[in-house]
Amino acid sequence: MSVLPEVLAANAAHAADFGERGSLALPPARRFAILTCMDARLDPARYAGLAEGDAHVIRNAGGRASDDAIRSLVISYKLLGTQEWFVVHHTDCGMEYFRGDVMAGLLDASLETAELGPNGFVDVGEGPGSPAGHDVDWLTIADREQAVVDDVARIRNHDLVPARIPVYGYVYHVTTGRLIEVAEATAVGAAS
Amino acid sequence: MSVLPEVLAANAAHAADFGERGSLALPPARRFAILTCMDARLDPARYAGLAEGDAHVIRNAGGRASDDAIRSLVISYKLLGTQEWFVVHHTDCGMEYFRGDVMAGLLDASLETAELGPNGFVDVGEGPGSPAGHDVDWLTIADREQAVVDDVARIRNHDLVPARIPVYGYVYHVTTGRLIEVAEATAVGAAS
Repeated sequence: MSVLPEVLAANAAHAADFGERGSLALPPARRFAILTCMDARLDPARYAGLAEGDAHVIRNAGGRASDDAIRSLVISYKLLGTQEWFVVHHTDCGMEYFRGDVMAGLLDASLETAELGPNGFVDVGEGPGSPAGHDVDWLTIADREQAVVDDVARIRNHDLVPARIPVYGYVYHVTTGRLIEVAEATAVGAAS
Repeated sequence: MSVLPEVLAANAAHAADFGERGSLALPPARRFAILTCMDARLDPARYAGLAEGDAHVIRNAGGRASDDAIRSLVISYKLLGTQEWFVVHHTDCGMEYFRGDVMAGLLDASLETAELGPNGFVDVGEGPGSPAGHDVDWLTIADREQAVVDDVARIRNHDLVPARIPVYGYVYHVTTGRLIEVAEATAVGAAS
């Protein structure tokens, strides 16, 4: 039941049709980077029109401007020349559906997968769990637009990020495939 | 000269042809996750055969098992049910071409983009720089196969990762598009 044979078969087909992609250069040809969520429904190559070789793509749970995402962005501009960055969160993000203390409690109870019930995630597994989740900042999202604003600001104000790099903030709508600019989305929300 | 209009035009075309993807569920349908590098030449959807909705994709500079990558992986299995994970580094990775102290020194000198000369990255810009790079663990790579082994082990041994989840280690070859299993690749290297 492992996905491994399927993945390797898909990779063999990919390699068999690799063509001139084998001579692409290391620095991103279109000189930009996207920081976005790991969510399975998001494919930045498709939603932003990327070919292999075009742009750096950084992804984590939520598309948050974590220290590690900023490490990656700094390498991206300082060594590999990107000149514009996008922060792209999305609707229906799992990070909106729990709080850090809930996650820590679930992990304390067991390392089995929790189930999403009407009142949030509940544990269904047996122990043992681990208390280590209490020491993690899970970077959950309380307000979708504000989280984009906060992450753009965190990048913008970081000591290692030069002022010349524009940082665009967007929300990807998983029901429509559209990127909505956050300032615009916020203004629409404020007017309604 | 901004890429923004191109990205928004590509997104409009994506949304116009979105079809049934708007009804995909949040949890990854194929229940796996890939941790890989931000490198522009890597497209995990293509190299591993992913459709939208299939799998979580986590990316950072190097595809390293940073704390933030592990945060994302724990959310991936604990709340969203992934059952198998891939760690995929690659050949010709930028993380092999500098050391942390060099990066910190370059950032100290200026926040302009460095150039890659015959003896490594050199700064070509004017200051001001920032000393903040000295406080960052840049997670550079000294040995390609060993870095995969180390990252698989770090995930494998983490308190919040259950033993039942397989963690596969691969190197993606940017000249051929092929995924090579690290244990196998190491054996080939040792025999040559």
